[in-house]
Amino acid sequence: MTDLRIGAIGCGYWGPNLIRNFIEIPGAVVVAVADLQPEPLNRMMQRFPQIETSTTDYRDLFDLDLDAVVIATPPATHYAIARDCMEHGLHVLVEKPITLNSDDAQRLIDVAEAHDRVLMVGHTFEYNSAVRAIKEMITSGELGDIYYIDAIRASLGLFQTKANVVWDLAPHDISILRYLLDADPVSVNTHGSSCVQQGIEDVAYTTLMFPNNVLAHIRSSWLDPSKQRRITVVGSKKMVIYDDVEPLEKVKIFDKGVKAIRHTDTYGEFSFAYHYGDVVIPYIRFEEPLRVQCQHFLDCVREGKQPDTDGHNGKRVVQIVEAAQRSMQNGGDTVYLNGNGRGNAAEARRVKELAHA
Amino acid sequence: MTDLRIGAIGCGYWGPNLIRNFIEIPGAVVVAVADLQPEPLNRMMQRFPQIETSTTDYRDLFDLDLDAVVIATPPATHYAIARDCMEHGLHVLVEKPITLNSDDAQRLIDVAEAHDRVLMVGHTFEYNSAVRAIKEMITSGELGDIYYIDAIRASLGLFQTKANVVWDLAPHDISILRYLLDADPVSVNTHGSSCVQQGIEDVAYTTLMFPNNVLAHIRSSWLDPSKQRRITVVGSKKMVIYDDVEPLEKVKIFDKGVKAIRHTDTYGEFSFAYHYGDVVIPYIRFEEPLRVQCQHFLDCVREGKQPDTDGHNGKRVVQIVEAAQRSMQNGGDTVYLNGNGRGNAAEARRVKELAHA
Amino acid sequence: MTDLRIGAIGCGYWGPNLIRNFIEIPGAVVVAVADLQPEPLNRMMQRFPQIETSTTDYRDLFDLDLDAVVIATPPATHYAIARDCMEHGLHVLVEKPITLNSDDAQRLIDVAEAHDRVLMVGHTFEYNSAVRAIKEMITSGELGDIYYIDAIRASLGLFQTKANVVWDLAPHDISILRYLLDADPVSVNTHGSSCVQQGIEDVAYTTLMFPNNVLAHIRSSWLDPSKQRRITVVGSKKMVIYDDVEPLEKVKIFDKGVKAIRHTDTYGEFSFAYHYGDVVIPYIRFEEPLRVQCQHFLDCVREGKQPDTDGHNGKRVVQIVEAAQRSMQNGGDTVYLNGNGRGNAAEARRVKELAHA
Amino acid sequence: MTDLRIGAIGCGYWGPNLIRNFIEIPGAVVVAVADLQPEPLNRMMQRFPQIETSTTDYRDLFDLDLDAVVIATPPATHYAIARDCMEHGLHVLVEKPITLNSDDAQRLIDVAEAHDRVLMVGHTFEYNSAVRAIKEMITSGELGDIYYIDAIRASLGLFQTKANVVWDLAPHDISILRYLLDADPVSVNTHGSSCVQQGIEDVAYTTLMFPNNVLAHIRSSWLDPSKQRRITVVGSKKMVIYDDVEPLEKVKIFDKGVKAIRHTDTYGEFSFAYHYGDVVIPYIRFEEPLRVQCQHFLDCVREGKQPDTDGHNGKRVVQIVEAAQRSMQNGGDTVYLNGNGRGNAAEARRVKELAHA
Repeated sequence: MTDLRIGAIGCGYWGPNLIRNFIEIPGAVVVAVADLQPEPLNRMMQRFPQIETSTTDYRDLFDLDLDAVVIATPPATHYAIARDCMEHGLHVLVEKPITLNSDDAQRLIDVAEAHDRVLMVGHTFEYNSAVRAIKEMITSGELGDIYYIDAIRASLGLFQTKANVVWDLAPHDISILRYLLDADPVSVNTHGSSCVQQGIEDVAYTTLMFPNNVLAHIRSSWLDPSKQRRITVVGSKKMVIYDDVEPLEKVKIFDKGVKAIRHTDTYGEFSFAYHYGDVVIPYIRFEEPLRVQCQHFLDCVREGKQPDTDGHNGKRVVQIVEAAQRSMQNGGDTVYLNGNGRGNAAEARRVKELAHA
Repeated sequence: MTDLRIGAIGCGYWGPNLIRNFIEIPGAVVVAVADLQPEPLNRMMQRFPQIETSTTDYRDLFDLDLDAVVIATPPATHYAIARDCMEHGLHVLVEKPITLNSDDAQRLIDVAEAHDRVLMVGHTFEYNSAVRAIKEMITSGELGDIYYIDAIRASLGLFQTKANVVWDLAPHDISILRYLLDADPVSVNTHGSSCVQQGIEDVAYTTLMFPNNVLAHIRSSWLDPSKQRRITVVGSKKMVIYDDVEPLEKVKIFDKGVKAIRHTDTYGEFSFAYHYGDVVIPYIRFEEPLRVQCQHFLDCVREGKQPDTDGHNGKRVVQIVEAAQRSMQNGGDTVYLNGNGRGNAAEARRVKELAHA
Repeated sequence: MTDLRIGAIGCGYWGPNLIRNFIEIPGAVVVAVADLQPEPLNRMMQRFPQIETSTTDYRDLFDLDLDAVVIATPPATHYAIARDCMEHGLHVLVEKPITLNSDDAQRLIDVAEAHDRVLMVGHTFEYNSAVRAIKEMITSGELGDIYYIDAIRASLGLFQTKANVVWDLAPHDISILRYLLDADPVSVNTHGSSCVQQGIEDVAYTTLMFPNNVLAHIRSSWLDPSKQRRITVVGSKKMVIYDDVEPLEKVKIFDKGVKAIRHTDTYGEFSFAYHYGDVVIPYIRFEEPLRVQCQHFLDCVREGKQPDTDGHNGKRVVQIVEAAQRSMQNGGDTVYLNGNGRGNAAEARRVKELAHA
Repeated sequence: MTDLRIGAIGCGYWGPNLIRNFIEIPGAVVVAVADLQPEPLNRMMQRFPQIETSTTDYRDLFDLDLDAVVIATPPATHYAIARDCMEHGLHVLVEKPITLNSDDAQRLIDVAEAHDRVLMVGHTFEYNSAVRAIKEMITSGELGDIYYIDAIRASLGLFQTKANVVWDLAPHDISILRYLLDADPVSVNTHGSSCVQQGIEDVAYTTLMFPNNVLAHIRSSWLDPSKQRRITVVGSKKMVIYDDVEPLEKVKIFDKGVKAIRHTDTYGEFSFAYHYGDVVIPYIRFEEPLRVQCQHFLDCVREGKQPDTDGHNGKRVVQIVEAAQRSMQNGGDTVYLNGNGRGNAAEARRVKELAHA
C-alpha cells in the first residue's frame, strides 16, 4: 500500500494541527504546504523538514501528483479553493464551516459528485470519543426519550472582525446536536448582542426545535469570565453532562429523573415520582478527535467511501447557521427550516401547533 | 417600644421560615397562625408554643388586634387575602409572585394607598448580601458599562401542577435583574418545553432586552441533573459571577475584559486589547436574606416607609412574567413591554432598530 | 410502649443537637436539662417548651424518674458525671472523648457492668451512611486488600485553650479507621506544631500502623485556609474517596489500581499493570448520623443491648489518642500499642520487622 | 554572539523536553544526542532533523567542540557522566536528583570548581512562576510569620522498580520548601509503606522541622485515585494554596487567620481573634518553567555565573532525601540534619527542646 500524498492549504491557526496529524498517521505523507504568507510557510518547513515543497500559490499543488488536500484557509475562501482542487482531481477535507452560504455548499457537493471526489468537512466533534459515547447511550435507549439538550460554548474568546460568534462557535454545537439527535431542527430563534464591536454579535442565544418536540438551546459567547464547554442531554431515564473543560471527568451519567404519574382519583391530578440513582463517570479511552477525523478521511479516500461528515452534513450545518443569522437580524423571530433550508408555511403551522400542544 | 403583633397566613412550605424569623427578631411577636389544613397548624403550634392562636379561617385574625400579616399561601389566593387584610387595617408582607396578574397587583397597590397600609412582596434576593454587593459594584462603576447578564436557575426541581417553571423560578431572576440594572426590560422572548407534563413548561429560556441594549438571559429548569443558581454580569471593565450553589466562594470578580481598538490605518479595522488581572473573591458578611427582608418589613411598618420591594416592584415582576408567558405561548415571539406592560408599536420599532444598530 | 424519659446534661455547643434529636424521635421525651450556666438553660427552655425542668445541678435529675441521660459537658467532666449517673441507675450516652484517660474509661466500663447500665459514646461517624457504605465495600471485598487510608480534617477551626487539635479532631478519624479496618493500630507516631498558642498544638500529623502492614495517616489542623474532611481508602482492586465537604457527591469509587506483575524472564524484574475503569458516585440515602446514633441508644436501652460504640470502643479511641499525645511530646517517636495501650517490647520488634519486610 | 553548542545525554522520558527547549531558545543549538538505546535516538533525529549527530556512547560528544551538556539519564548514572563531562571541559545541567548520595554530589561540586565549570541541577519548580510569586509574598512579609507548610504530590503514578516514591517525588517538594523558607530542615521523619512492590515504598509521609519551629509535611504517593499537587503555606497574616492541578486558578491567597489574644483578667486565659478577608487569585503570567530553567543555564554558562540551583543546592536536597530514607528504614525515627547532613547530638537536643517549648 503506497502512501497517500497530501497537500495542505492554509497553515495559520488550525492548519498546523492537521499537518501534524497527517505526518504522524502511517499511510500518508504531507508533500507540500501552501499559504498566502511566507512566514507560516517557513515555520512549517522548519518544524517539519520532511515536507518537500512550500508555495504561496495553492495552484502549484496541482503539479505534484497529490491524492488529496486539506484546506484550513479563511472560510470566505473555502468554496473557491475546494472547487478548484476537486476539479483538478483532488479529494478534499475542508475546515468548518464548509462555505459561507448553503448554495455554495450545494455546488461543492455537485462538483464532488461530478468528479467522483471525496468531499469532507472538519466537524471534529463528531469524531470525539465523549460525543460518540453519548450518541451510543441515546441509540441504545439508555437515556430514554430525549427531552432537551442544552449546550454552552463560552470564554473570553478570540474576537473576530469578519464573523460573529454564531458563525464562529455555533457550528460545533449544531454539528453535535444533529449527530446526537440524528435529525435536523424544524425552527431556529437566535438573540444576539454586539457588546464590544458594533454589528458583530459576540454573545448569542439560539433555540432550536427538533422533531418530536425536542428542544435544544445553544449559548455562544466570546465574552464570559470562565471557559465553558458543556452539553447537557436530559432524557426520560437518565441525564448526561459532557463537560469538555474537565480534564478527566468529561462525561457524567446521572441515573435520575422525574416521571409524571396520573392519579386515578377523581381529581385527575398528576403526582411525580423522582428517581435518584448512582452517578457514573465512564472510563472513555481518549483518542485525539482530529486524529480520528484525519484517519477517517484517509480511509474514505482509499476506499471511495462517503465520509460521516460529508458535504451534505456541512451544508445542513450552514443552513442552520444561516437561519440563526436571519433570526438574529430580525430580533429573534422564528425561522423555519425545511428540506432546503427555507421557510415553509405548512411546516411552520405544524411547529406552532406542536409548541402549544 | 411595644412589640409589633404579627399574624401568619399559610404555614406549608415557606411559611415556617417567615414565622421563625419573626419570632427570632426582637420587636415582633407572632400572635397567630392560619392555614386551611390543621396538620401544618399543629406542627407550628408544637414547634412554636409561644404562638397563642391557630385557626383554619384567616379572618379570625382580624379580631386579634394585629399590626401586620405575612401571607405565604398559594399564589392564586394572594390577591383576595392581601386585599381583605389591608381593608381590615393590617400591613401586608406577601410572598412572590404578588398576584397572578398585573391588574390584581395594581388593585392591591390602590388598596394599600387608600388604607395607608404597607404592602410588601417577598422578593428575597433583593435583600441578599451577594446581590447587594454586585449592585454596589455596578453603581460605583467598578464593572464599567454593563454588556449583558446571564442567569441560570436549574435543578431536578419540585414539579408543580398549576404553574409552569417561568412562574415558579423566573420571578427571582427578574427581580434580581431589575434590581441590578435599575430598569425594566423593553422586550421579552421566552421559549419553553413541556417535557414531563403536557401543558406545563418545565424548561424555559427567556431573553430580555433592557434599555441601552443590555441583553439579559434567564435559563429556568426543573429538569437538570445538577443544581445551578448562577448570575454572570459582564461589564466593560470587570466581570462578576454570583454562584449561589458555592458554599463559600459565592461571588467572584474577574478583572478581565476585552476592548475594541479602532485602527488609525487605512484599513479601518479593529483590533482587540485583552485585559487579564486578578480574580477576587470578596469576603461578604452573610446575613440570612429572609431575616433582612423581615426586618425591613418591620421597619417600614413602624416608620411608615415604602418598602424596597413594594407593590409596584411586585407588579412589574408580574408584568414581565405575563409577557414571558405570552411569548412562550406564541412560540417565542417578541413581546414588548411599556409602562403598563402591554405592547406599544412605537417602542417596538425603536427596539428593533436598536437591535440592528 | 411508654416513652423513655431522657435528661440532658450540658446544653452549650453540641447538647442542643442531641436534645433536638431526642425530642423529634418517637418513643422518647426530654424531661429535663442541666447546665452550670443559666443562659443556655433559658435558651433551651424557650426553644423547647415541652421540657419540664431545668437546673444548674445535674444531680437534681436523679429525682425525676429518668431512664437515661445524655452528657455533652466539657470532656474533663465526663468521667465523674457519667459515673454518678450510672450509679444512680441511669443509662448513659456520653460525648466523645469518653474520658481524658483510658484508666477512667475502664472504670466507667466497670461501673456500667456492675450496675447493668448501657454506656455509649457519641462516635457519630460510625453511624454515618457514607462511612457505613465504605465499610460494606471493604467487608464485601469490593475494594480488595486495603493498602492504606489517608484522612484529613482541617479548617480555620475553633481554637480551644484546654485541648490540642489531636484530642479535638483526631478521635473522629481514629473512630472511623477502627470501624473501617475492624482493628486497632499497632503503633502511633504524631508530629505536631503549636503555631498560635504556645503549648497547644493546632496542627498535627499522625501515622498509624495497623495489622497486616496497613498504613493510616491523619492530618488534623485548626489552621487551614480551606475546610477539608476527606477519607481516602486505597485498596488493591478499587479506591474510594469520602469527601464530607462535598454537598452531594460525598463518596466516589474509582475502579482503578495497579498490580505488580513478576516477569518470568531472566531479569526477574517487575512490570506494572495499570487498570482504569469507571468512577461511580453511589446514591446514598442520607440520614442525619446523629439521629441514627440517638435511635441506636434508645434501642439499646430498651432491649438491653450493647451499643456499637460502647465503653470499650470509647476507651480504645482514648488509648490511641493518649499514644499520639505521648509520641508528639517526644518529637514524634513511635509509641507501640498493645491490648492495654502500653508499650510491649515483643510487639515493637515485630512491627519494626514488618516495616522493613 | 555565537550560539552555544549543546549536547543532550539521555533522551528517554524527560530528555526530549530539554532538547525541545534548547532548540527553541535563541542563542543555543543542539548539536548531538546520546542514548544507550537506538530507538529514542532515532525518534529524536526524526523529530529534530537539525541535530547533526547521534550516538550510543556519550563520550563521542567530547569530540564535537560542545560548550555544554544536559544529562537526563537514570539517576544512578548522573555522577559518573556529569564528572566525565566536566573533566572534559563541558558545563553541565543534570536532572534531579543530582546524584544518589551526597558524597558524590560533593565530589561533583569539587570537580566543577577545579575545572571552573557551571554545574546546575534541574530543580524545575524553583523556576516556576507560581512558586516564585509565593516566595515573593513570603519575602515581602505579606504572609506574616510562616507557621507551617503542607505539600502533597500524589496520583496513580508511574511506578519505578529501582527508586521508591521518596526518591522519585519528594525532591520536588524539598526543593520548593528550601527555596520558600530559605533554610534547611533540622530534622526529618518519614513513614512509608510498600503496598504494591515489596521493599519499594509507594506511599510516604515526611515531616520536616525547619528552624524557628516551622513545620513542613510532605505526602508522596504513587497510589492515589486523584492527581494532587498542592502546596499550602500558612502564615500569621495570610495563607496561600498553590494547586498545580488547577488549570487556571493555581494560586489562591486567603486573607484570613487567627490570633491568640491574652486576656488581662485574672484567669490569664486566651481568646482568639479570627480574621476573614478577601480571597485573591493573582494573575500570574505563566512561562514554561523548564524554559526559564534552560535559559538560566545558558545565561550562567555565558556569564560564568553560579546557577540558582547549583551543585550545593542539589547536594542539600540529596542529603535530606538520604535522611528521609534513613528515617523510613527505622520505622519513622527522627533523623537530625546538620551542616554535613549527619546526626549531631547537641542539635538534636535543641530540636527536642524546641518541639516541646
